[in-house]
Amino acid sequence: MRVHRVLVPELEAGRRPLRGAEAHHLRDVLRVREGARVEAFDGGGRVAWTRVVSVDPHEVVLAIEEPHEGAEEAGVELTLAVALLKGDKLAEVVRRGTELGATRFRLFACRRADAGPPSAAKIRRFRRVAEEAAKQSRRARVPEVLAPVALEALELGPRTVVAVPGAPPLRAVLERPQPASLTCVTGPEGGLEPAEVDALAARGARPVGLGPRVLRAETAPAALAAAILLPDAL
Amino acid sequence: MRVHRVLVPELEAGRRPLRGAEAHHLRDVLRVREGARVEAFDGGGRVAWTRVVSVDPHEVVLAIEEPHEGAEEAGVELTLAVALLKGDKLAEVVRRGTELGATRFRLFACRRADAGPPSAAKIRRFRRVAEEAAKQSRRARVPEVLAPVALEALELGPRTVVAVPGAPPLRAVLERPQPASLTCVTGPEGGLEPAEVDALAARGARPVGLGPRVLRAETAPAALAAAILLPDAL
Repeated sequence: MRVHRVLVPELEAGRRPLRGAEAHHLRDVLRVREGARVEAFDGGGRVAWTRVVSVDPHEVVLAIEEPHEGAEEAGVELTLAVALLKGDKLAEVVRRGTELGATRFRLFACRRADAGPPSAAKIRRFRRVAEEAAKQSRRARVPEVLAPVALEALELGPRTVVAVPGAPPLRAVLERPQPASLTCVTGPEGGLEPAEVDALAARGARPVGLGPRVLRAETAPAALAAAILLPDAL
Repeated sequence: MRVHRVLVPELEAGRRPLRGAEAHHLRDVLRVREGARVEAFDGGGRVAWTRVVSVDPHEVVLAIEEPHEGAEEAGVELTLAVALLKGDKLAEVVRRGTELGATRFRLFACRRADAGPPSAAKIRRFRRVAEEAAKQSRRARVPEVLAPVALEALELGPRTVVAVPGAPPLRAVLERPQPASLTCVTGPEGGLEPAEVDALAARGARPVGLGPRVLRAETAPAALAAAILLPDAL
């Protein structure tokens, strides 16, 4: 049986009226009735069971039980730094990356980027995609989606890898046990330019290869997330 | 610069007229001209450089050079055994799995399968998706897509894992170095039934967990392929 989930920021025990998108989702999409059990999560890692007190066209009221820590996050705090891609490809990266357990998404512009900076509305859409994917995958934390910056201004973590064709594989680049925090940089469809890779390497990023095949720009970040997070997953 | 690629079964050196879908692709989609260099691959692992001799509405003629072995395949012969899924989800599995290096796809029916057996036309479509993905990812071998069977009749390799929520992670289940051949079984959206998992386990399949989050049925096979093939990828 599928558990219905609802995102409730500033989650605390007690009665809570919901309006807007979350009320609509519960009432018109999930069609919950009075008395139904729904799991609430705050997007920051806490969850609580709730019971539906009333459903009307203006609001849905929940009785929230004591919140507690939700399902564990991955052992690695993983940042996916992704070049601007065309069409719905960034939404796809956010959706799969969220399911797989990425902590945040940093978007960046670069020389061969496939698209210009997304509009504010599009960034909001990526954030909704992250919320939806967290909800469906029963994740308690919603990853951040940060507004794009130029590659030179991209914040790198203490440990960063950058996907470069022909570079050594992950196993040769990442020590065991894995670092607590890792940033993975992946380029646009046409790849990062050599000077861009050099600039990242000068800032400490280590090139990593993704095998003899050419992965699509939207496949590479999810593949890295899976390769890093899945083998050790609880 | 993107290399144009064309699938030419029974590849051998010499002149070769192409008609049908591949000729259409070269002429009308890629818009190649006389004299253009095109890489041909046979889908079985061999590739050859070719030069376009002529382009007309009926055929495209290639002059094929001596074929040679193409890019190396993954070190693990990976079979993705995937439950029948709705809509375009199986095509998505075939596309991503091909990019990542899977060797074959076995489809199977099970109790909670999200869809009935696909039509013969749909299986042909999955095979075209595998060809397209091989072409784009510069893979020399096109993975097989086998017609669906009942779960009980699913052929398991010498080493098989089955994705089961809460089971031990990949690192605990797969020895290092990895086996030369591995089958990964993943269920439908609602999961395999416990009796189905038990029956697979009785046939030697080892349950493997994919972490605390619930992966979508179409995400799980690609995530397993990435987690198994990417860390060691050339």
